Amino acid sequence: MRSSRPLLLCVALVGAVAFADEGMWTFNNFPAAKVKAKYAFEPKQEWLDHVRLSAVRIAGGCSASIVSPEGLVLTNHHCAHQCIEQLSTQKQDFVKTGFFAKTLADEVRCPEMELNQLVEITDVTKRVQDATKTAAPDKFNDVQKGAIAKIEQDCAGGSDDVRCEVVTLYRGGRYDLYKYRRFQDIRLVFAPEFSIAFFGGDPDNFMFPRYDLDMSMVRIYGKDGKPMKMDHNLKWSQGGAKDNDVTFVVGNPGGTSRTLTVAQLEMDRDVRWPQYLERLGELRGWLTEYQRRGPEQKRHSTSELFYVENSLKAIKGRQEALADPAFFAALVKNEQELRKKIDGKPAWKKAYGPAFDGVAAAVARARQLRREYNALENFSGGELAGLARGFVRYADESTKPNEQRFKEFTDSRLPQLKQHLTSAAPIYDELEIAMLGWSLTRMREELTADHPVVQKVFGQKSPEELARELVTGTRLKDPKLRAELFAGGKAKIDALKDPMLEFVRSFDAEARAVRKTWEDEVEGPQKKASELIAKARFEAYGTSAYPDATFTLRISYGQVKGYQENGKEVKPFTTLAGAFTRHTGRDPFALPKSWLDAKSKLNGEVKFDFATDNDIIGGNSGSPVVNKDGELVGLVFDGNIQSLGGDYGFDEAVNRTVAVNSEAIIEALDKIYGAKRLVDELRPTGAAPKTGQP
Amino acid sequence: MRSSRPLLLCVALVGAVAFADEGMWTFNNFPAAKVKAKYAFEPKQEWLDHVRLSAVRIAGGCSASIVSPEGLVLTNHHCAHQCIEQLSTQKQDFVKTGFFAKTLADEVRCPEMELNQLVEITDVTKRVQDATKTAAPDKFNDVQKGAIAKIEQDCAGGSDDVRCEVVTLYRGGRYDLYKYRRFQDIRLVFAPEFSIAFFGGDPDNFMFPRYDLDMSMVRIYGKDGKPMKMDHNLKWSQGGAKDNDVTFVVGNPGGTSRTLTVAQLEMDRDVRWPQYLERLGELRGWLTEYQRRGPEQKRHSTSELFYVENSLKAIKGRQEALADPAFFAALVKNEQELRKKIDGKPAWKKAYGPAFDGVAAAVARARQLRREYNALENFSGGELAGLARGFVRYADESTKPNEQRFKEFTDSRLPQLKQHLTSAAPIYDELEIAMLGWSLTRMREELTADHPVVQKVFGQKSPEELARELVTGTRLKDPKLRAELFAGGKAKIDALKDPMLEFVRSFDAEARAVRKTWEDEVEGPQKKASELIAKARFEAYGTSAYPDATFTLRISYGQVKGYQENGKEVKPFTTLAGAFTRHTGRDPFALPKSWLDAKSKLNGEVKFDFATDNDIIGGNSGSPVVNKDGELVGLVFDGNIQSLGGDYGFDEAVNRTVAVNSEAIIEALDKIYGAKRLVDELRPTGAAPKTGQP
Repeated sequence: MRSSRPLLLCVALVGAVAFADEGMWTFNNFPAAKVKAKYAFEPKQEWLDHVRLSAVRIAGGCSASIVSPEGLVLTNHHCAHQCIEQLSTQKQDFVKTGFFAKTLADEVRCPEMELNQLVEITDVTKRVQDATKTAAPDKFNDVQKGAIAKIEQDCAGGSDDVRCEVVTLYRGGRYDLYKYRRFQDIRLVFAPEFSIAFFGGDPDNFMFPRYDLDMSMVRIYGKDGKPMKMDHNLKWSQGGAKDNDVTFVVGNPGGTSRTLTVAQLEMDRDVRWPQYLERLGELRGWLTEYQRRGPEQKRHSTSELFYVENSLKAIKGRQEALADPAFFAALVKNEQELRKKIDGKPAWKKAYGPAFDGVAAAVARARQLRREYNALENFSGGELAGLARGFVRYADESTKPNEQRFKEFTDSRLPQLKQHLTSAAPIYDELEIAMLGWSLTRMREELTADHPVVQKVFGQKSPEELARELVTGTRLKDPKLRAELFAGGKAKIDALKDPMLEFVRSFDAEARAVRKTWEDEVEGPQKKASELIAKARFEAYGTSAYPDATFTLRISYGQVKGYQENGKEVKPFTTLAGAFTRHTGRDPFALPKSWLDAKSKLNGEVKFDFATDNDIIGGNSGSPVVNKDGELVGLVFDGNIQSLGGDYGFDEAVNRTVAVNSEAIIEALDKIYGAKRLVDELRPTGAAPKTGQP
Repeated sequence: MRSSRPLLLCVALVGAVAFADEGMWTFNNFPAAKVKAKYAFEPKQEWLDHVRLSAVRIAGGCSASIVSPEGLVLTNHHCAHQCIEQLSTQKQDFVKTGFFAKTLADEVRCPEMELNQLVEITDVTKRVQDATKTAAPDKFNDVQKGAIAKIEQDCAGGSDDVRCEVVTLYRGGRYDLYKYRRFQDIRLVFAPEFSIAFFGGDPDNFMFPRYDLDMSMVRIYGKDGKPMKMDHNLKWSQGGAKDNDVTFVVGNPGGTSRTLTVAQLEMDRDVRWPQYLERLGELRGWLTEYQRRGPEQKRHSTSELFYVENSLKAIKGRQEALADPAFFAALVKNEQELRKKIDGKPAWKKAYGPAFDGVAAAVARARQLRREYNALENFSGGELAGLARGFVRYADESTKPNEQRFKEFTDSRLPQLKQHLTSAAPIYDELEIAMLGWSLTRMREELTADHPVVQKVFGQKSPEELARELVTGTRLKDPKLRAELFAGGKAKIDALKDPMLEFVRSFDAEARAVRKTWEDEVEGPQKKASELIAKARFEAYGTSAYPDATFTLRISYGQVKGYQENGKEVKPFTTLAGAFTRHTGRDPFALPKSWLDAKSKLNGEVKFDFATDNDIIGGNSGSPVVNKDGELVGLVFDGNIQSLGGDYGFDEAVNRTVAVNSEAIIEALDKIYGAKRLVDELRPTGAAPKTGQP
């Protein structure tokens, strides 16, 4: 499924040449001529502004859209899964049973959800590039980080209601300042049962045909505790998506790698993905068996297992794309063509030629550093260790000037950090001990048992023993204490004697050191060289290309469309009736009771899920599918298996976006869930859907 | 650790050029001149015959040596781990406590161990190659298989005491017939506790320095039920290994890939290893957590977890070697040099030039077929499913002429198959259900939920449900029934209504079909082309090279030697005292009680483990390290982490064999385990070791 968590986010580098329905376009570079030429439709600026302002980003890694003037927001079930799990208890498991707030008063706040609405884009390329003009490769990162933090700070003007972010587009070819409205009081309104949201489970994930109601609804609340009135929202279409409809997907693709150099692609293929496959495989096996400890353990770990399996399948698809000799050869050829053009002009050759070696050198350094970097700086051992790292770092970083902080502690990120560090979401000791024990074992494995950090951190203890001690001993489970720590800052945090904080502190110097080396010797030189390659690409191919995805708002165009697979036609739609045919009664092919009970009432011919050839990637989960009239006709929740290579290149013939049809949502809300208040809010005219829709 | 199970065995292809102490040499092509030039020592034919006949192969995937005239055999603990586990019960866990037969009468038969002693090697190249001379690539495999089965049958003459195997050397450049004495009554004599055999566990596996007593002893019994008198055995050295000693390792390296083509290497790097990493990672995570179900579950699954972790680490090392750009570039250069030589002579170019494309085409086909092939033909879901597959196939194959059977059902393999199919080793339902459930999930994943075989096999059932039904319902748990089935053959097997047999039968046609396609379109063309490349290599470089490893007896030469790691010297020896320093009291760094109790009696200066630069690989586990006098000075149990790339190329500077010093074995047997009867048998002179040995 197409949510984006940090794992899937790629380091940003330079725009590719677009053809066919390819492209995740920025709103300030919409390819109006291309769309008009292909679909005889040219969206006006008003249309573009309206769909942009109707879209919201879920800061944790998904997309969504505003679907009523009262701040009702539509996204995927899997984008709200964490919230649904956090609101559940042993007595009331909303993941299993679904959730429906019968009245406004029943809507419940999600502990850690933040939504962002993109209100303004400003080109700040000159300001950013001027700052680093004379910076050596190993200083590049520091200098650029400082310049960006300053721009963001100036933009936000100290307000938490505004989130400003400088976005590196075209891998440094362009820097735009994105200004968002920030919403942090987000309340859960509706979610169906997990078994229909994720019908078919991991076996059907990234597959098509599909039969999933992967939807949920939340609502934006203002500081007055009332639903936020929104100026823009997508109108619900009458009739939903139809075959060959022109479709626009408006959302936040997390990251693509279509303009990486061959050295970077080789690193992905040979090092990064194999390593992820092994780790995620291990986590998958471990969590699957952990779930058998009991129903509570299963409940606590379901969203984690989903995340692991989803990432595993996505990465497997990426790795397999790169492992395909013809696919990889095409990527090599792309680079060779660019380099030939560069080498053809002496001035270009001088300016841009060395950049490829610059990237390669940075990649070689990354290969050397990656073990220590992963084990120390990327250490992640469950919620509590993560919170402890957050506080230990926050104590030190928050006392520094904004420009000198780690990126994730700059002013523009603090409200989201605060929300996370002070969240009242439940934490489960047993799962925490297991997660931390697993991570400690991996740390020892990466560094070896003789590494000084391992010797210091472990002493005579086993990973499990240490994990149990830290988890049972820490007071960080208490959200009230955490709120005090955050408010009290460095003094308060430093003063607290807590084993988990001590643990994190015990190797923080080493973690910071390897991060510094990484930033100076990998990231900085890579960014500097990539910026040059971006410029070369602009010179060689012009600026009418789209940049690699950056988990910022994009619009892609396409149409509802089937495809050929192993010589057979795959039709673009499934129906509600199809879900009953696929039902075996056994997880993950078991429809929930609510569906079985409502079967006779349902119109089985209603189109359920559908495929389009829009170009999307992880992070686009929850994006609205919009028709020419700017109406919502679908809800993106996945791509097909052929779309996974889309990280590196788009194949219009088979790469498909997978969405829930808007009519299926209405049919389910109305006839299965009795959610009339939502149907009325979504379709205020009260007009009934046409039956037997095409 | 360096045992070899099928996973690690590579398809055999053509010898490389040797330099330094590189090479796993066949006994009929010993590089006498090289050894003499380097070490001023030239073993006589008698010397070679003696060490060859003192070595035995453990048919399941290890090496060993005969160390007394009474058939006493020394190998690793991890090579006998399966036997030790099979002889254990809930009341008496020999893996945990160790095992020592105080008298001959206490020695207990291992249910599934077979030893082979290599008595004769005959060149049958002409006979094999003549048979396939006119075979088309897609018939090559069938024709060759038939010719080889005939040669083996003629050699064994119907006797089960003889095992004859045609070995494909130099990837088809040469075919030798290896004639073995076969021993199937093998009894466990001694094993220390797992905690000292595998001290340091997975974290220290494939590392050096080490502190492991990875040894066990078994004894060969004759059909008279008495210890077998052996004509040859290695004498135990006085004083063990010393720094710079010349050392010979005599054992059965499982497989190397030093003469693969670039297309094959890319397949390993990009497809095979990443896939294994993911699978083994998942199994590791799953088994680690499964062990927490309880102490019995832990006991049942310990050798499986060891096998999985050991394979995972070994494959990670191989994948990382290929992922190293300089290492891979060197392999590419090797091939380019050979191809340049071939292209330089028109006759060579015509004869051998197309072979590289032939291999590449076969590899491309393998990429297409691998999912179905793995899911159907390589299906493995625990002991019971394996036994069922064995019986279903045995029923059909055993009625065919020897030449037309699957290789694993030819006459020369039947005694080992019988031993396995009729073994009385315990089978644990809970583990079986879990393993089969896991495998079924993976099958569904590889084939997708919509594959006809999945639809047929699963019906409406979940993998867990199906697994539980099959495991609880099958009668194959009964070894008596299995003995009857084997004796009764096809009629008896076909007549048995058993759910596990039915399950295996339900997709046997599809499994056979994909195997046939694989053999005809991948293996056959690959073998045919590889044979040509082997001939080209002989023409270009002569025949004085060693062939890739083939799990047959080899001898490698070298010396006791440290190395440099991260700028620091790693000394070649550790001491017994060092183990006590490394002891933390926590698994896997917890010494057993027997060691802690004996500490004051032990001479801490006795050298424990040591490193040599002999060239070995998985399968060499249990090999004796022999000095110039043909005496045993050590017991190979591992290689260092740098040795893992040895699959593809040998780096003398850092690639090290890791062995237990013979003196440490005596010291432990004598002072810790009170095994005087064994010490006396190993050192019949009774001479005490020198103290403070160098």
